[in-house]
Amino acid sequence: MAQHLVTFHLDDPALGGHAPRPPAHVPTGTLLTEAARASGVEIVQPCGGQGRCGRCAVHITNGEVRRRSTLRLSAEDVAAGYALACQSVVEGDVSVTVPPQEKIERRLTTDRVVAEVEVPIGYDARAMQTIQRVSLALTPPSLEDQTDDWSRLVTALRQQAGVEEVDVSLALLRRLGGILRDANWDVTAILDTHYAPRTTLLDLRPGEPPLFGLAIDIGTTTVSCWLIDVISGQVLAQAAEYNGQIARGEDVISRIIYASQNGRGAEMQTLVIETVNSLLAAACEKAKVDPQDIFKATIAGNSTMMHLLLDIPASSIRLAPFVTAINHVPPLRAIDLGLKINPEAAIDCLPGVASYVGADVTAGVLSSGMGDGEQLTLFMDVGTNGEIVLGNRDWLVTCACSAGPAFEGAGVVNGMRATRGAIEEVWINGDTLEPTYRVIGNAKPRGICGSGLIALLSEMFLAGVLDKGGNLNSSLMLEEDDLHFVTQRPAAAGGAVRGRTRRVRPGEHGPEYVVAWANETWHGQDIVITHVDADNLLRAKAAIYAGYTVLAERVGVPLESVERFLIGGSFGKYLNVEKAVQIGLLPDMPWGQFQFLGNTSVKGAYLALLNRSERERITQIAARMTYIELSADNTFYDAFTSALFLPHTDLARFPTVAEALTKS
Amino acid sequence: MAQHLVTFHLDDPALGGHAPRPPAHVPTGTLLTEAARASGVEIVQPCGGQGRCGRCAVHITNGEVRRRSTLRLSAEDVAAGYALACQSVVEGDVSVTVPPQEKIERRLTTDRVVAEVEVPIGYDARAMQTIQRVSLALTPPSLEDQTDDWSRLVTALRQQAGVEEVDVSLALLRRLGGILRDANWDVTAILDTHYAPRTTLLDLRPGEPPLFGLAIDIGTTTVSCWLIDVISGQVLAQAAEYNGQIARGEDVISRIIYASQNGRGAEMQTLVIETVNSLLAAACEKAKVDPQDIFKATIAGNSTMMHLLLDIPASSIRLAPFVTAINHVPPLRAIDLGLKINPEAAIDCLPGVASYVGADVTAGVLSSGMGDGEQLTLFMDVGTNGEIVLGNRDWLVTCACSAGPAFEGAGVVNGMRATRGAIEEVWINGDTLEPTYRVIGNAKPRGICGSGLIALLSEMFLAGVLDKGGNLNSSLMLEEDDLHFVTQRPAAAGGAVRGRTRRVRPGEHGPEYVVAWANETWHGQDIVITHVDADNLLRAKAAIYAGYTVLAERVGVPLESVERFLIGGSFGKYLNVEKAVQIGLLPDMPWGQFQFLGNTSVKGAYLALLNRSERERITQIAARMTYIELSADNTFYDAFTSALFLPHTDLARFPTVAEALTKS
Repeated sequence: MAQHLVTFHLDDPALGGHAPRPPAHVPTGTLLTEAARASGVEIVQPCGGQGRCGRCAVHITNGEVRRRSTLRLSAEDVAAGYALACQSVVEGDVSVTVPPQEKIERRLTTDRVVAEVEVPIGYDARAMQTIQRVSLALTPPSLEDQTDDWSRLVTALRQQAGVEEVDVSLALLRRLGGILRDANWDVTAILDTHYAPRTTLLDLRPGEPPLFGLAIDIGTTTVSCWLIDVISGQVLAQAAEYNGQIARGEDVISRIIYASQNGRGAEMQTLVIETVNSLLAAACEKAKVDPQDIFKATIAGNSTMMHLLLDIPASSIRLAPFVTAINHVPPLRAIDLGLKINPEAAIDCLPGVASYVGADVTAGVLSSGMGDGEQLTLFMDVGTNGEIVLGNRDWLVTCACSAGPAFEGAGVVNGMRATRGAIEEVWINGDTLEPTYRVIGNAKPRGICGSGLIALLSEMFLAGVLDKGGNLNSSLMLEEDDLHFVTQRPAAAGGAVRGRTRRVRPGEHGPEYVVAWANETWHGQDIVITHVDADNLLRAKAAIYAGYTVLAERVGVPLESVERFLIGGSFGKYLNVEKAVQIGLLPDMPWGQFQFLGNTSVKGAYLALLNRSERERITQIAARMTYIELSADNTFYDAFTSALFLPHTDLARFPTVAEALTKS
Repeated sequence: MAQHLVTFHLDDPALGGHAPRPPAHVPTGTLLTEAARASGVEIVQPCGGQGRCGRCAVHITNGEVRRRSTLRLSAEDVAAGYALACQSVVEGDVSVTVPPQEKIERRLTTDRVVAEVEVPIGYDARAMQTIQRVSLALTPPSLEDQTDDWSRLVTALRQQAGVEEVDVSLALLRRLGGILRDANWDVTAILDTHYAPRTTLLDLRPGEPPLFGLAIDIGTTTVSCWLIDVISGQVLAQAAEYNGQIARGEDVISRIIYASQNGRGAEMQTLVIETVNSLLAAACEKAKVDPQDIFKATIAGNSTMMHLLLDIPASSIRLAPFVTAINHVPPLRAIDLGLKINPEAAIDCLPGVASYVGADVTAGVLSSGMGDGEQLTLFMDVGTNGEIVLGNRDWLVTCACSAGPAFEGAGVVNGMRATRGAIEEVWINGDTLEPTYRVIGNAKPRGICGSGLIALLSEMFLAGVLDKGGNLNSSLMLEEDDLHFVTQRPAAAGGAVRGRTRRVRPGEHGPEYVVAWANETWHGQDIVITHVDADNLLRAKAAIYAGYTVLAERVGVPLESVERFLIGGSFGKYLNVEKAVQIGLLPDMPWGQFQFLGNTSVKGAYLALLNRSERERITQIAARMTYIELSADNTFYDAFTSALFLPHTDLARFPTVAEALTKS
């Protein structure tokens, strides 16, 4: 097949303008995104390479490509040489300039603080933990007793520890003789007793080795990892980071489409495994733990993330009738997935319920405790998807809606995770339209996290910067003579001028509001919220609001009768309820009924990791939950459309907000 | 580290003398054997690279090497530039000539005939076989039934086949959704029920797939493989071949030493797996079977072979107190070993008893039936090792002795396996000393197999070509005037001249006897038996004779009270009892008490493959056998030394032979 030379230039100011990359030699028919990767250039594909989002547009400066689709490009763009990298095919030598890539990348690897996680009261590793260590004293072999090493060990396990049935891997068998002799026949066996009486030997060590475990939540946007001492139950370190798959699609649908192409399932798996490996390495370093001493990992995550983690085809999840390949994953070993912990470590993937209600929700329900009491409880897990569970200890119904990653700081120009440098709270002066903000860690701001975005939306709305429809009020922009006025009176530069403000200004994608000026920020660039950002946030909150209201309607429970409103998700902890009600994300209920639980998914994984009964309860929860398919009729769509306003088309649903609007 | 240039020349007449090989660049300290391998030259190391056998001697024609040992070389050899490749280290540029390599290599891949193996009477795959196929009709998913694929299958297995507990590999889970949809939800599940109620799903297929299995015997010298239709029980094809490890040591001790060096365990595993893969590929091709339809392999072999197959360190086998790492190997999958059959196929390694009584013997005892009746039976499995079992259904004792590979045709200059072209029977005219021989397949002879070697030894002894001590009678060699006589009278060239014969002549390693002249043979070269060959054969038979006599003595049972004498091993089937008694390999008992069973090990594997009860009986046999360590005192050595004669030091033990000697 003919080979072509493809040369990429990065249009990156940080690299001094057009930085050339080593050219790639590729055969006819290669996608530009693939050619770019061959040149070491990663072009983000938020829609998963479907040609839908238009964000992989590149500039063909020399030669020509075949455009399979130009959906998001205007005729002028195409005439000027622009092409969608995910939809353009190399058919000759070509030079390509890649515009600055939207940064959906790692910012920080640890959360703002190590949340204080309390070890469950009465935790008793010997009684509750599936990973056990057993000290054994073996009689060395002799000419009188030529029993083989493995039988000798199995007999000792039976006689000294009451273990009747032991599985072992070939890899560990290979090491057996050496370990026994090096330890002079006094060893500690590390056992996985999850499937007792069937037991698995995970390792053999001299002395009394420590035992560690990992609780992991694989989110579409964010992956969280806790390192746990399974003897004491204590959380030793926590780490979180964007999922390495994020540049291959921002939502689960885009990821499924991307992964379903030939060979990309393995690529997606590698990306998320690399994320988990880097997180666990960071956690181990912090806590000074040897990853080889980690013998168990309990994993939660939505169904798509679980399939992609295991490289199990996920296409059936997005196509009617929307079924997963598997909800209850059999026991695995770390080596099956390439996790860099003890290769024999037990990998326990928690069970999900349906395509869009996965193990993140079952784990969340467990850790929320909503299935234990009589109170009618609504539990929401807000991540890239919003999953909602309604019920109590007698019944549980659940549904899901696609919120997008906006509240996790992705898909928003200056969005970021709730880590050091994130603006987490904003107030806007109604007169001057000047903002005040609070930054995590009291650092110079680097971006805005979910709670900051909600606050910002609410404040902009109440100050009149945003209208009810979520549009930036462009009449607030300075006009030419205002600029003159400002130049003459520098002291007034920060404030509103004749009812207008330079905070509102035209940007690349329509009007934008400047939250922080370049001279205040960590990176020396303005931090803004754009019209597109506001629209994304509005759609996210509308999807969630529509989700829980429709769910309550379906089961005939008025929203008012809900006694507790539990909120999980990474932003949950830092959220200002008042502001979340003001934008219509949360219903207008007494604030005391809301409770923020943080990452309920990883917490559920933690509880299941520690205690076999809690693990069993997650299976029971999964069995008890009734899934309701929102896509079955138009009710959800109607509710979503009505919620695409601040706070809602029907202001009567938000009496306290109506009151605040009157005052402001 | 300094790099050196090592150039090898092969002194191979077939290549027209000195054939140069591409030179190798190796660092200081590289062994010549390693450097040779880097040049694509394999130097045989029958002793496993210990410097004991001297058969890897090479000629250094330029430059110098450091000789760590010159044990088998004379001072003259060393002065002339000879060095042991396994003991010489490169420290500078060097040129090496490699003498013609003794050919211990593959000759033929199939046995003389497909032995007629009868399917056990009453074989019923549904009742006896652990591999089962189950047709399932699944209801396709719908919006009303969004059950995940795996749960749907598990439910069908429970409801339609009564299967309660199913394991599955991640690899098969990945293929699940595609298979179910391609098959339109009508599939046949292939299950491994060996550990029922715990069941493993091996594959899913549309229609009614065939099910095949392999019975494999890994011998030190020869690997045998039977391909079996597990539904009918029929053996479809058989194949056998030298074990690919043979150039790394001819006996188990040499192999263990070789394998214990860094990284060589994996090399040894690869070699034997390659042998098995080539055998099964040949069997599949012959029977027109797709290897992906093979779902089970039952493997027998001695303990060392089993360890090397699994790459489990075997060093403890050869060092006091002589224990194995494992006798009862846990269930494995084909993919664990790299067998090129269905990757999920169940691999069942049969259980052994001790370091030198392995699964080949337990399988052999099963297939011999000696453990079933009351008759006192002696069972011998003669391979590279000789294992002996004595007893009946009430008790079983066992021991092992090292016979070497001579009876398998290896370690003998013109030895070969009992395949087409092998001389399997020889008669020598006592007057002319001219031989007559029978060749397997009525082909031109290529070499001599075990039964031929025994016949040859016996005939040479009775004709006076060999003396009682196994020495070739050099007084039979032609002298100078005989040669003149022969030249003058060509018609007499084949016969004895003045009581002498040109059949006996000086060879490279002392005197040799010519069995077939070059013009009669397949390869156009003389087929001979050398003094060294005769010595190897004598040592082999002495070890076996000493083994069973000492075993009988130890348990206080006179050899005469043995009612049946069962002989397993690859030569067994074609052996002439009279001649085996004449050389003192078998005791001088009524011939009717001997029974030749052929390869009892692979036959036992076959029975265990078919029937779960037979498999269970092998475990019971292993538990019942009492191992007796012959090395514990000098009795064995004394018996061995006494047996190093034809037929024995004590001719009174062999009355029929004494009689024959009187006649001849």
